[in-house]
Amino acid sequence: MPQPASTPAKPRIEGIFTPNIVPLLPDGSIHEAELRRYVDWLIQNGVHGLYPNGSTGEFTRFTCEERQRIGKIVCEQAAGRVPVLVGAAEANVRETLAACERYAEYGARAVAIVAPYYFKLSPESVYAYFREIALHTPIDVTLYNIPAFASPIDLPTIKRLAEFERIVAIKDSSGDLPFMMRMIAAVRPMRPDFAFLTGWDAVLTPMLLIGVDGGTNAISGVTPELTRKLYDLTRAGQLAEATRLQYRLLELFDAMLYSADFPEGIRAAVELRGFQVGRGRQPQTERQTIDYRMLQNVLQCILADFGCAAAPAGGCPPRTGNIDQDRISHIAATVVETLRQRGAI
Amino acid sequence: MPQPASTPAKPRIEGIFTPNIVPLLPDGSIHEAELRRYVDWLIQNGVHGLYPNGSTGEFTRFTCEERQRIGKIVCEQAAGRVPVLVGAAEANVRETLAACERYAEYGARAVAIVAPYYFKLSPESVYAYFREIALHTPIDVTLYNIPAFASPIDLPTIKRLAEFERIVAIKDSSGDLPFMMRMIAAVRPMRPDFAFLTGWDAVLTPMLLIGVDGGTNAISGVTPELTRKLYDLTRAGQLAEATRLQYRLLELFDAMLYSADFPEGIRAAVELRGFQVGRGRQPQTERQTIDYRMLQNVLQCILADFGCAAAPAGGCPPRTGNIDQDRISHIAATVVETLRQRGAI
Amino acid sequence: MPQPASTPAKPRIEGIFTPNIVPLLPDGSIHEAELRRYVDWLIQNGVHGLYPNGSTGEFTRFTCEERQRIGKIVCEQAAGRVPVLVGAAEANVRETLAACERYAEYGARAVAIVAPYYFKLSPESVYAYFREIALHTPIDVTLYNIPAFASPIDLPTIKRLAEFERIVAIKDSSGDLPFMMRMIAAVRPMRPDFAFLTGWDAVLTPMLLIGVDGGTNAISGVTPELTRKLYDLTRAGQLAEATRLQYRLLELFDAMLYSADFPEGIRAAVELRGFQVGRGRQPQTERQTIDYRMLQNVLQCILADFGCAAAPAGGCPPRTGNIDQDRISHIAATVVETLRQRGAI
Amino acid sequence: MPQPASTPAKPRIEGIFTPNIVPLLPDGSIHEAELRRYVDWLIQNGVHGLYPNGSTGEFTRFTCEERQRIGKIVCEQAAGRVPVLVGAAEANVRETLAACERYAEYGARAVAIVAPYYFKLSPESVYAYFREIALHTPIDVTLYNIPAFASPIDLPTIKRLAEFERIVAIKDSSGDLPFMMRMIAAVRPMRPDFAFLTGWDAVLTPMLLIGVDGGTNAISGVTPELTRKLYDLTRAGQLAEATRLQYRLLELFDAMLYSADFPEGIRAAVELRGFQVGRGRQPQTERQTIDYRMLQNVLQCILADFGCAAAPAGGCPPRTGNIDQDRISHIAATVVETLRQRGAI
Repeated sequence: MPQPASTPAKPRIEGIFTPNIVPLLPDGSIHEAELRRYVDWLIQNGVHGLYPNGSTGEFTRFTCEERQRIGKIVCEQAAGRVPVLVGAAEANVRETLAACERYAEYGARAVAIVAPYYFKLSPESVYAYFREIALHTPIDVTLYNIPAFASPIDLPTIKRLAEFERIVAIKDSSGDLPFMMRMIAAVRPMRPDFAFLTGWDAVLTPMLLIGVDGGTNAISGVTPELTRKLYDLTRAGQLAEATRLQYRLLELFDAMLYSADFPEGIRAAVELRGFQVGRGRQPQTERQTIDYRMLQNVLQCILADFGCAAAPAGGCPPRTGNIDQDRISHIAATVVETLRQRGAI
Repeated sequence: MPQPASTPAKPRIEGIFTPNIVPLLPDGSIHEAELRRYVDWLIQNGVHGLYPNGSTGEFTRFTCEERQRIGKIVCEQAAGRVPVLVGAAEANVRETLAACERYAEYGARAVAIVAPYYFKLSPESVYAYFREIALHTPIDVTLYNIPAFASPIDLPTIKRLAEFERIVAIKDSSGDLPFMMRMIAAVRPMRPDFAFLTGWDAVLTPMLLIGVDGGTNAISGVTPELTRKLYDLTRAGQLAEATRLQYRLLELFDAMLYSADFPEGIRAAVELRGFQVGRGRQPQTERQTIDYRMLQNVLQCILADFGCAAAPAGGCPPRTGNIDQDRISHIAATVVETLRQRGAI
Repeated sequence: MPQPASTPAKPRIEGIFTPNIVPLLPDGSIHEAELRRYVDWLIQNGVHGLYPNGSTGEFTRFTCEERQRIGKIVCEQAAGRVPVLVGAAEANVRETLAACERYAEYGARAVAIVAPYYFKLSPESVYAYFREIALHTPIDVTLYNIPAFASPIDLPTIKRLAEFERIVAIKDSSGDLPFMMRMIAAVRPMRPDFAFLTGWDAVLTPMLLIGVDGGTNAISGVTPELTRKLYDLTRAGQLAEATRLQYRLLELFDAMLYSADFPEGIRAAVELRGFQVGRGRQPQTERQTIDYRMLQNVLQCILADFGCAAAPAGGCPPRTGNIDQDRISHIAATVVETLRQRGAI
Repeated sequence: MPQPASTPAKPRIEGIFTPNIVPLLPDGSIHEAELRRYVDWLIQNGVHGLYPNGSTGEFTRFTCEERQRIGKIVCEQAAGRVPVLVGAAEANVRETLAACERYAEYGARAVAIVAPYYFKLSPESVYAYFREIALHTPIDVTLYNIPAFASPIDLPTIKRLAEFERIVAIKDSSGDLPFMMRMIAAVRPMRPDFAFLTGWDAVLTPMLLIGVDGGTNAISGVTPELTRKLYDLTRAGQLAEATRLQYRLLELFDAMLYSADFPEGIRAAVELRGFQVGRGRQPQTERQTIDYRMLQNVLQCILADFGCAAAPAGGCPPRTGNIDQDRISHIAATVVETLRQRGAI
């Protein structure tokens, strides 16, 4: 039963929340010290909040116990300096609620819960799932809509879910601007405390323009100072400058997103900012390992342009704004090598 | 062979181009007088140009001869007051080039050519198609990318095609903001005369913000004065007001787009602006005819809010911003009626 | 208004209908003499019927006049030896009905009409479209469902349309076996004269097994004698042998379908059977022209295995059943060449 | 490094493996006694093997510990009477390998491992993932391809993975017949011991015809005796009778699959066979609970036709073969009720 939204609402969640990656030790376990150092660095560089156990944080590749440990570390390390949203999706509602309790104890501002994935659920089932959580959670809930990976949360479902006081925000990673506008138009009049966060870094400025409250943007884990600057410029109405920066960040975003399986590109870039991220949990072939180093070279050049990294020793080629072209000689070399190995040439 | 882009370029195409619907007589033929009156009205209400034989103009539902007649009427009636882009896609390259010649004679500013449809072509074939046209056309060409209906024109293909001087613009109806940014980033440095037009009305303001030159927006055929105002406000940097208007136009756009098969909703709305549009060429069932009238009622209420139409005689219900809810009693009535007819209740 | 299906029904359409390609002269016009020779050859090699103006026949790339000429040539040349289904889809219902009248005069057994394409229509609109045709056509109609290219005709719509006596068959190119079973289960009890034809050559034997009446298979334009043999073996219950042949034809089908934009692979193979097909109407780049010759080499080797063509002069490599591998040295050569041209190596 | 496939291979996995649902107690925990009774019943009714922790078994909705308990119970209860494939996908490769060891101890014939899900991985990453597992698993592995839910395992990847001796089978739930044929054509010559299992119940007979070794079919958990009969009839070449049975089972399959979110329809049907399945772990709304009972009524009528259940007390309506029509009065009632609650009528 939806509760009346009569109690004095907490302020809306807003700003840039970093969905942090998790540094790993050589044996594949969580590198706690480096994670704490990374959290400090992010806060010092201006992000408004943290978001462990998101997609960027590869929550599906950790065990339940590891996810809770990650949430605990980040909450502890943030130590009230910035709010923390913790990803709390577990195998089923009971486990998810148990996780919610844990994160409430750790002092999280709210949890974020992705719609059920693997199975593609109907809107009615998506509603039933979040309703059950909303009715029993001891902590505020952010809906997490990422239709590329999980069952979509459609507009009528969002409207129905916004009737629950415990549901206080939606993070939408579709990047669909009109969809965001439809959500805002439908929900804001009845829930002025409800926050809208975009997870699609490529359109942060346009999203802020049409009224979102902030973003949970993977790119802020790589260039927190620039993402914050983009946010501040847009908020200040300096749109020409904001747009220029958005274009430049788009190039970085595209390079990270489309040159390796997500979120390897993010991990590669965080490493360039000086963190020991370790090898990811998804195994890689030799070819992918080479590609990873190639990509880091490209990323280093982009980051060097921003002044966020030193240029690589070998220097950077004149940039074409075209990752494909920048990598063509590598690809050709790979083909030729493959053929040679197979005895074809 | 790409020509050097050395000749003094014409000014970039820019502004709002209306993809006009075609009024029909009761026998289904083109209602020339009404089309001319409609063209006058659009120009008087501020659109920067016209765009006959677009998707809104249902070019696929007319014969080759009819398409050329429509192009001729619109060019004649515009009479140099505003530029005209004429949709020139025909069954094959030879026919398309013949149409290009015709539209050049009629005084069109350029033609717009949709990527091949029905067959889903590879990027290489899309390139080959437009290259052949670019090499022989006597008139400037606007590429038309509408991946929902036709073979997509991807980014590498656009870059290759921008090497042809005769290709001077792209109209993109994907509504994908980052894709537009990637195109602009890739093409503008080498082709400052190349124009980017968005065909997705729901994001006109954000698109202008990131640098597009204008739009070919179906909604401008319904509310030319408001679309022009949205354009002017955005250009003038009055973004708060522009965004408010964009939100309101989104409601109109959604109602027209998602309550009937495209472009019936546009036709229904143009009729409300005082034009005899006649019945469309796609047959309708009785249920659809009822839905069409229901939709017009909703549209009339939205237009009345804008001051663009009188409210319907029966008055307007309090608006929920939710077409679905506004129509629910109709849907229920339809279900009940259907059941009754089938003897189920 | 659906007519009662009381009149004595004509026998069901059945067997293999060839959706023929159209040979072209060097100037791009229809090569009538070669088309007639091709029709004769197909009939002599055992196909049960012909199907001009299908997707394989690239109906969208001809003008309305050309389509009618193609239909006329095929009907004349068949001369009653086998039935002809003529693709009759035109720009709108009026034009389509005019084409139906023409094909009735030419002696076609029926027309085949693809669901509206370009615009994606709702089921209700698809129904309205075919209903209008069914009510006024002077000739039997075959529905043509090809969801990859045109608006889908879904199951409830097929059931509604099967109430019209003039609609006598459906050609389904989805290749979806359970969908075909659902259609047969729903329609056959009430319309025993209604025929089901599959357009997906890769599953002809399984489709015949579950009860379809025949196929309109592009592969039958390349290997009519083998397609006929596959049909006969399956009908005779010699399923082990039929399945072996189906596997071998799948290799040919895949090579034709996935190595070039449809239907260039079919055209390439028909040429190998001794017909002057000419260059297709869709332009090709130089790279595609090379690919076309490469593909013909592969196809010639496959056809030589069947005894349908001489092996190429250079001989055939040991076949891997893997087109990709067979072409890898070509691809590598192309990459290297491209790099060389760009000065990259 | 792929091992030579030189050691004497175990016999190919073959026959019908039931992906069992998991009965639950009122408190949501595993109903072990009922699961054991269900396993016995399945074996007594002729299934060739069991497959716990599949999609039907909702493996994602259990914790790691619960999954292992389910695998243990089923292995124990099967007690060597039939082979068991246990779904072993865990959060990452290390956890998955730990599970593999456990299932090897429990006596499973092999594990089945779904491709990584949530993240959509490239073919290279899918390969890297399974390679890592293949190199270290102590038990044979069945690949599980279910592109609707998880990263697809494409043809080149399957060929590469078939080089590992430990990978002995693929379960494919795409239902794509030509894809299965391509896999068989590519892998069987080099790996005669490699098994192909279909997970798409609707085409079991055609799949067996083209050479698959068996199926992991949810429907066999509902009607094990009939699925076994379908298998035996097809194997015996009694294809007319097999096809008739396949049609009848398609109706049951469609009702279970398309009238509720998967696998609720399977659970509803298993309950009708006399098992206390309990409420599923995915929450349901009141409307869904009503729908569930409605669906059970329909399923009971279908099962009664097979003699697998008594007809419901209220009798069965004449069957239309159309679940939609059978449920229309329910839908109408729901609409009317909804309107009433909202005060709309």
